[in-house]
Amino acid sequence: MNTLAAVEAAASTTTAVAGVRWDDGLVIVDQRRLPTDVIERRLTTVDDVADAIRTLAVRGAPAIGIAGAYGISVGLRESPPGDADTARDEIRSIEQRLAVVRPTAVNLAASLARVRSAAVAAPAASAADVAAAALAEAVRIHDEDRQATLAIGRNGAALLADRHRILTHCNTGRLATGGDGTALAVIYALEAQGRRPQVLATESRPLLQGARLTAWELEQAGIDVRLIVDSAAGAAMAAGLVDAVILGCDRVAANGDTANKIGTYQLAVLARHHGVPFYVAGPLSTFDPATPNGAAIVVEERDASEVTGFRGQQTAPATVRAWNPAFDVTPAELITAFITERGILEPPFDRSIAEALGGAAAAAGAQGRVGVAR
Amino acid sequence: MNTLAAVEAAASTTTAVAGVRWDDGLVIVDQRRLPTDVIERRLTTVDDVADAIRTLAVRGAPAIGIAGAYGISVGLRESPPGDADTARDEIRSIEQRLAVVRPTAVNLAASLARVRSAAVAAPAASAADVAAAALAEAVRIHDEDRQATLAIGRNGAALLADRHRILTHCNTGRLATGGDGTALAVIYALEAQGRRPQVLATESRPLLQGARLTAWELEQAGIDVRLIVDSAAGAAMAAGLVDAVILGCDRVAANGDTANKIGTYQLAVLARHHGVPFYVAGPLSTFDPATPNGAAIVVEERDASEVTGFRGQQTAPATVRAWNPAFDVTPAELITAFITERGILEPPFDRSIAEALGGAAAAAGAQGRVGVAR
Repeated sequence: MNTLAAVEAAASTTTAVAGVRWDDGLVIVDQRRLPTDVIERRLTTVDDVADAIRTLAVRGAPAIGIAGAYGISVGLRESPPGDADTARDEIRSIEQRLAVVRPTAVNLAASLARVRSAAVAAPAASAADVAAAALAEAVRIHDEDRQATLAIGRNGAALLADRHRILTHCNTGRLATGGDGTALAVIYALEAQGRRPQVLATESRPLLQGARLTAWELEQAGIDVRLIVDSAAGAAMAAGLVDAVILGCDRVAANGDTANKIGTYQLAVLARHHGVPFYVAGPLSTFDPATPNGAAIVVEERDASEVTGFRGQQTAPATVRAWNPAFDVTPAELITAFITERGILEPPFDRSIAEALGGAAAAAGAQGRVGVAR
Repeated sequence: MNTLAAVEAAASTTTAVAGVRWDDGLVIVDQRRLPTDVIERRLTTVDDVADAIRTLAVRGAPAIGIAGAYGISVGLRESPPGDADTARDEIRSIEQRLAVVRPTAVNLAASLARVRSAAVAAPAASAADVAAAALAEAVRIHDEDRQATLAIGRNGAALLADRHRILTHCNTGRLATGGDGTALAVIYALEAQGRRPQVLATESRPLLQGARLTAWELEQAGIDVRLIVDSAAGAAMAAGLVDAVILGCDRVAANGDTANKIGTYQLAVLARHHGVPFYVAGPLSTFDPATPNGAAIVVEERDASEVTGFRGQQTAPATVRAWNPAFDVTPAELITAFITERGILEPPFDRSIAEALGGAAAAAGAQGRVGVAR
């Protein structure tokens, strides 16, 4: 029943804001241009897809994985193969071209491998059958991510009870994932339940994902959001404006130590000082049992130019040096709980994480290194 | 001996970088244009002086006070009075025009009043005598500030012993004062003593005084400085890169609670968490015994546009709301010590501050409100 046309019809999504979606082809919102320009781009070649991922037009690990998975279908349309075997070869070739674009991010390579495996293994009489299997697997990856984000949202909303004034960091929403997001999914769930969340969004220098993306997508969704500079988070907590901090994660170690966007760690320290609960939201795919703890995570330092300027505007002397770690590591003891699609994980995290992961020492993607900036 | 020519000759300064100086007339570095353009502007009319203060071409409370004091001499040159009485009237008129430009800042009004009193009280046979007295008093104000900053630098350098890796916030240096600054004076003193300070400067959003001004002036002085985003301060402390935090103050209450640039408070919380000493540097003129504690300080909220953009570049949706307090209040218990021109003030601060102020309940300027952004 997986005819290509049927799969394509089912794949079309109707979410208001979506960083990546399939609508008779791969469509993304160009995140480099937000919030000043909302530009949807249709990616019609493998080079288009590679460029979009490389240049952060698509960002957020789940969104990148989904874009890559759909990218195989893009490639099969770009150069229609003549028969099933040619289609399988073409898929392997596309996988190789896309997997190297952001080699340190796990999601991209993993999604491409899933699509390739499914398409190669599918009983197929024609190139169209192989293409249908590839697209069906990409849709499945997208759907799983969407369902995970909805579950994260529900679980987080239940956890929060009557607390609805949320401080969040970076962007973890509909632009960054295949669904509602991670931390922002909780906020969307609160809103859907009529609980009127009030969000303080940090601007998240240096790349300003909070200002450019979170403020934009929450405003699109009609959610009460106010932007603050990163330096105002402590003052906001001291003023009693924050019931909970909720943010995402790039990699969670087996003991619960968590790598995430620079600034996450100091928000955790501030939350602890003020007795504000500090929640990390993320799908279980972000938990890496092969990374024992935060000390095993190497944090990438990025170019000084991110700190000394913004969008071509120089903000500091061009010659000044900068210290620009893209991520930091928050020790598990500062984290109140993890919000995952399989429920809330509470301390002791080594046990609750292992249980959630089914005790399996999943070795995949255990590179111990946080990828490029989200 | 206070002939106008002699006073003018003595007033000329030779500091490498000076936010405000007298060089046969009032000269400022236009801080709005730094660091991309280093433009010295000669202010030749009272309107010039008022505009420079209003538009933050001159900023930093001490620098504003000094610019205002010299502004009287600027006015006497712009419209040379015919006799001593006319000169005194003219001085009162200039004082009134300049004092209202930034009414909430204490330094400007206080400096203008000092110059007016000195000039009016001076035995003078001619307009030139009155003008000489006015300029002499402005020079005295400038010299006192310069001496205070040098003493703050010496006292801070002695306090630091072998700690030379300093994190600082906002701009508190040669641009903001009549001398070496407050927190930065300590760094200049370390450098002068051959102790090679290593500075981490926060960029200090939203107005980026750290990126635009501190990084620039420290680089000019050949000091080892690295810029960080405000969100990286906690990670820097966790990485063991910070021996001490030193920053300035806008108003210190009688109990030691301190209002300063937004972000100061959370740096204090972070320093406490990491066991890093947290020093506030400032002249005693910043201590306000008439403000009993931080609760009596009203913090100014500024326009959302400061957070939603930078230099005309929109960084967030134009319609998004922001919470933009210009200052925050750090409770005294998070402060290790104050570095002043009369020495180091240690807890209990209510006593050490009162002693430093000579027990006088100086009531001047007790408005309980922090002024406009520095």
